Amino acid sequence: MTGFTSFMEAALDQARAAAAAGEVPVGAVIVREGRIIAAARNRMRELTDPTAHAEMLAIRAACQNLGSERLTGCDLWVTLEPCPACAGAIAAARIARLYYAAADPKSGGVAQGPRVFDHPQAHHSPEIYGGLGEAEAAALLKDFFAARR
Amino acid sequence: MTGFTSFMEAALDQARAAAAAGEVPVGAVIVREGRIIAAARNRMRELTDPTAHAEMLAIRAACQNLGSERLTGCDLWVTLEPCPACAGAIAAARIARLYYAAADPKSGGVAQGPRVFDHPQAHHSPEIYGGLGEAEAAALLKDFFAARR
Repeated sequence: MTGFTSFMEAALDQARAAAAAGEVPVGAVIVREGRIIAAARNRMRELTDPTAHAEMLAIRAACQNLGSERLTGCDLWVTLEPCPACAGAIAAARIARLYYAAADPKSGGVAQGPRVFDHPQAHHSPEIYGGLGEAEAAALLKDFFAARR
Repeated sequence: MTGFTSFMEAALDQARAAAAAGEVPVGAVIVREGRIIAAARNRMRELTDPTAHAEMLAIRAACQNLGSERLTGCDLWVTLEPCPACAGAIAAARIARLYYAAADPKSGGVAQGPRVFDHPQAHHSPEIYGGLGEAEAAALLKDFFAARR
C-alpha cells in the first residue's frame, strides 16, 4: 500500500467506525511529515453537536497535538467533500493540502455551492485533490442511508 | 433597554471580555423564547483552536443546554458578520434568526464572498438582520487591532 492509499484507508476506517456507531459515515485524518497526527469521525449524535464533523474534530485534535492554532504544512484526508463549515475551518487552520474521496453535491462547500476557497474571504486555500477512494466512501454512505430507510 | 438592544449588548459584553483576554473581540449569545441560553466569545488563542469562534462556541453550548443537535426557534446575536465556518454551523444548527452588528468585508461569509446561505447546499437559511450595534462592535475591533500595531 502506498502512503497516499493508506492515509485514505485510515480515513475510511474512521468512516466505518462512524457507521458502526450510528453516525453518518465520514472520517478524516491529518498528516504531517508523512505521519498521521490526528484521526476523527463524525460524532454529531454522540456529542449532541451539529459541528462535530470528522474534519472539525480532526483539526481540533491536531492543533492540540502541535500546540498551534495553525496546521501549516499539514494535509487533511477526508472521505467526503467538506461542507462550508469544515471548509472554513480548513482555511482558518491553514491546511496545506486537502484530499477528499466522494464529492457531495447535496452539502459540499468546496467544489459546489459556496465554493468557500474560491473567494478572497477564505484568506487561505489548500491544494485540493478529489476522487481517491471515492467508490468506497460513497458506498459506505449509500449503505448507511439505505439501512435507515 | 428593549429586549433586542439588550441581547446585542450582551453579545458586546462578550466581545469586550474577548478583547480583555487578548482575543479578537467578537461575542455572541443565543436566545430562545426571550431568554439567553448561551453566551460565548472568541477563544482561539486560549484554546489553541482556530475554530473556537464566538458563534461556534455559543452554538455548541446551546446544544448542550437543550440536549439537541438543532436549535430550531433559537436566535443568534453576534457582534460581527459570521465567517463561512460559522455560517455553515448556523445552517447545520437550524438557527431561526441571525442578528449581526458589524459587516466583515475581509472575512465574512454571509453577505459577501461565499454567501453560505445563498446556496441549496446550506439546507437552511436563517432570517438575517445586520447593523444593530454596528458602530460599537466595529470600534471594539478597530481599537483592538490599533493597539497591536
